Amino acid sequence: MSFEFIENGTVTSVPGFLATGVTAGFKRSGAPDFAMVFSEEKETNFAGVFTSCTFAAAPVRLCQQRVRESKFMRAVIINSGNANACTGEPGLNAARQSCAITAAALGIAPEEVCVASTGRIGVQMNMELIERGVALAVPALSNNGGTLASEAIITTDTVPKAAAAKVNINGKTVTIGAMTKGAGMIDPKLTTPHATMICIITTDAKIANADLLKLLDRNAQDSFNRITVDGDMSTNDTVLVLANGRSGVEIPPGSDAEKLFADTLLAVMQNLARRMVKDGEGATKFVEIKIVNARSVEDAKLAAEAIGNSALCKTAWFGNDPNWGRVVAALGYSGAKLDPEKCDIYFGDIPVVKNGGDAGTLEKDLLATVKADEFTITCDFNDGDCEYWVWTSDFSYEYVKINADYHT
Amino acid sequence: MSFEFIENGTVTSVPGFLATGVTAGFKRSGAPDFAMVFSEEKETNFAGVFTSCTFAAAPVRLCQQRVRESKFMRAVIINSGNANACTGEPGLNAARQSCAITAAALGIAPEEVCVASTGRIGVQMNMELIERGVALAVPALSNNGGTLASEAIITTDTVPKAAAAKVNINGKTVTIGAMTKGAGMIDPKLTTPHATMICIITTDAKIANADLLKLLDRNAQDSFNRITVDGDMSTNDTVLVLANGRSGVEIPPGSDAEKLFADTLLAVMQNLARRMVKDGEGATKFVEIKIVNARSVEDAKLAAEAIGNSALCKTAWFGNDPNWGRVVAALGYSGAKLDPEKCDIYFGDIPVVKNGGDAGTLEKDLLATVKADEFTITCDFNDGDCEYWVWTSDFSYEYVKINADYHT
Repeated sequence: MSFEFIENGTVTSVPGFLATGVTAGFKRSGAPDFAMVFSEEKETNFAGVFTSCTFAAAPVRLCQQRVRESKFMRAVIINSGNANACTGEPGLNAARQSCAITAAALGIAPEEVCVASTGRIGVQMNMELIERGVALAVPALSNNGGTLASEAIITTDTVPKAAAAKVNINGKTVTIGAMTKGAGMIDPKLTTPHATMICIITTDAKIANADLLKLLDRNAQDSFNRITVDGDMSTNDTVLVLANGRSGVEIPPGSDAEKLFADTLLAVMQNLARRMVKDGEGATKFVEIKIVNARSVEDAKLAAEAIGNSALCKTAWFGNDPNWGRVVAALGYSGAKLDPEKCDIYFGDIPVVKNGGDAGTLEKDLLATVKADEFTITCDFNDGDCEYWVWTSDFSYEYVKINADYHT
Repeated sequence: MSFEFIENGTVTSVPGFLATGVTAGFKRSGAPDFAMVFSEEKETNFAGVFTSCTFAAAPVRLCQQRVRESKFMRAVIINSGNANACTGEPGLNAARQSCAITAAALGIAPEEVCVASTGRIGVQMNMELIERGVALAVPALSNNGGTLASEAIITTDTVPKAAAAKVNINGKTVTIGAMTKGAGMIDPKLTTPHATMICIITTDAKIANADLLKLLDRNAQDSFNRITVDGDMSTNDTVLVLANGRSGVEIPPGSDAEKLFADTLLAVMQNLARRMVKDGEGATKFVEIKIVNARSVEDAKLAAEAIGNSALCKTAWFGNDPNWGRVVAALGYSGAKLDPEKCDIYFGDIPVVKNGGDAGTLEKDLLATVKADEFTITCDFNDGDCEYWVWTSDFSYEYVKINADYHT
């Protein structure tokens, strides 16, 4: 039996999780900017993957410590409007103190609280705003507050992004809920101990921290690490998963249960990853870049990422220009090993390059494909059996506008 | 004695070189699109460096063969409007035939002709246009035709770019002239045997092909390979230098004469490289990124190139936004080894980051710097003694417009 998505699913679609979103005052706009997710279960396992940025932000460094040292995780707070990055020791103290304030208000230990931040880099946290956020959020926590939480964590996103799915494992229902934010500075390279994407995942599966981390890490490689909006990785990328065990369904490593759980988790993460790209800053198009029959996965990855991050390809897509020459140029500088004379390229199902040269397709026959909101470019290297894909967006006037004007 | 630039210098500022530019019909606009440079001296040495793109265009592959096999080089033809890239064997034949047509009209051997092309990728050459170009250019060749030639090779460039300098070596004057094109698809990685930048350099120095290649390659690393407009390397990047020996000044390897010659050559190449970035597609700003006191040149290079190619940094510069957080983020994902807590960053001479955190400079005090047409961002790693710099431009609405609408 396979998983199915829950309509309007959120982090609170999972039994035992409460959440909310409030206005603490981080955003000048007065929009909601502080979210809290809380697990009613004392023994809530957890795992996290974070940015690989050398300048990882204070909250990231604190969460990494939690992953190493804490046994259980009861609450996550997320503020949007200040990244608490490049804030040195005061920033780290602010992150620690944010956890302490939250813990005191919830009656749990500070080690059982994680914090994630997004917004302007290099600004010290205003602790009064954290205090206000916590004071407003704790009484507002509710088992249908997931939507409010997902609204409070966004920055340049135009829509909140949440999802949930359930799967029958050993006769019982396991639910996975998640919310994410991120529209710019998106090219996550998440690693075990690593997007400013932030994703909070909840589940009622019963799974050990180490096993959960392994699944999270593997699935991040096949979801958030496959997306790019601008090629800029953030200082604050954070993906956290909390597993409260309330379903009573154990997920032992190597079991069929684990496979079902992992597949469902991946589906939820890919659903959100895809929506992040669609909501990418200024994005008008969703483009899947697929490299097939490459000599190695690494070659396929180099090629897919070069095309996915090419300013010339992205502006051509914005212009509905089926300019495959720019795709070829990106392949050519990607560093991927390939034989140009064996290389075929397709826009959708339509061949544009055959054996490294023009396939003879008329530009007018490509227009319907490139004018669509969503299409796939496939590069067949005909030179092996390895593949890789990425999801990317186009580059529009709006992208420039958003980022030339951005001040949180 | 040092070199000096010649006012309005071009490839024909060098004695013994003729050039011209004509309209052959490659460009729909009817603008000049075919240039020819010719050396009156039979024994004209030469060297070339080219794109490292896997899909190197037909003319690049032919020029690479010339560098390997030809002893002398008398003429270079350059067309703008068709890149003759991804054109397979017919494209290579077209490049060969273009040389043969030129050779026949000039009374020289086909092996003594090089061809460079720029424009749309994937379109077969129209040989009638080459024939027309050659027929018009040969009778128009002149010792003051350098400016016409530099006008005929441009594509999305808004201004032609040429320069010349002279230097006294051993009591005699050696002259170096050059012209270049390129405003987009600019992130050259030129190597010995490697932009769509095209640069044709002339000199009357007397220097062996192998020695000339060594100097050209080294200087390319410190000029064209230091620039980026969009991070997209081209299929057609070509830098050729012709040395006709007419000055009678020998340039033996390791000599003082070589140092003077190399310095002058570098100055001419850097002058043109800088002007290419200033004329980069949609560019409103010229930004120098300087990494100092890094552990290795490679670390400094990774860092400088990451900042120079960051869409978020480039859009911030367009918006006059002194957002150093994006610079830090780019440093953080660059892969450069550095200690965040030792890292200082300056906009112009003004500190913005001290020890990895906010240096406390007010945004208003940075505005004059970031509003200027030209500024330097220096990242001091305080962690070694190696450095690297790149020249880059900002990312504007106009960039998107040019590249969403581009059809040669």
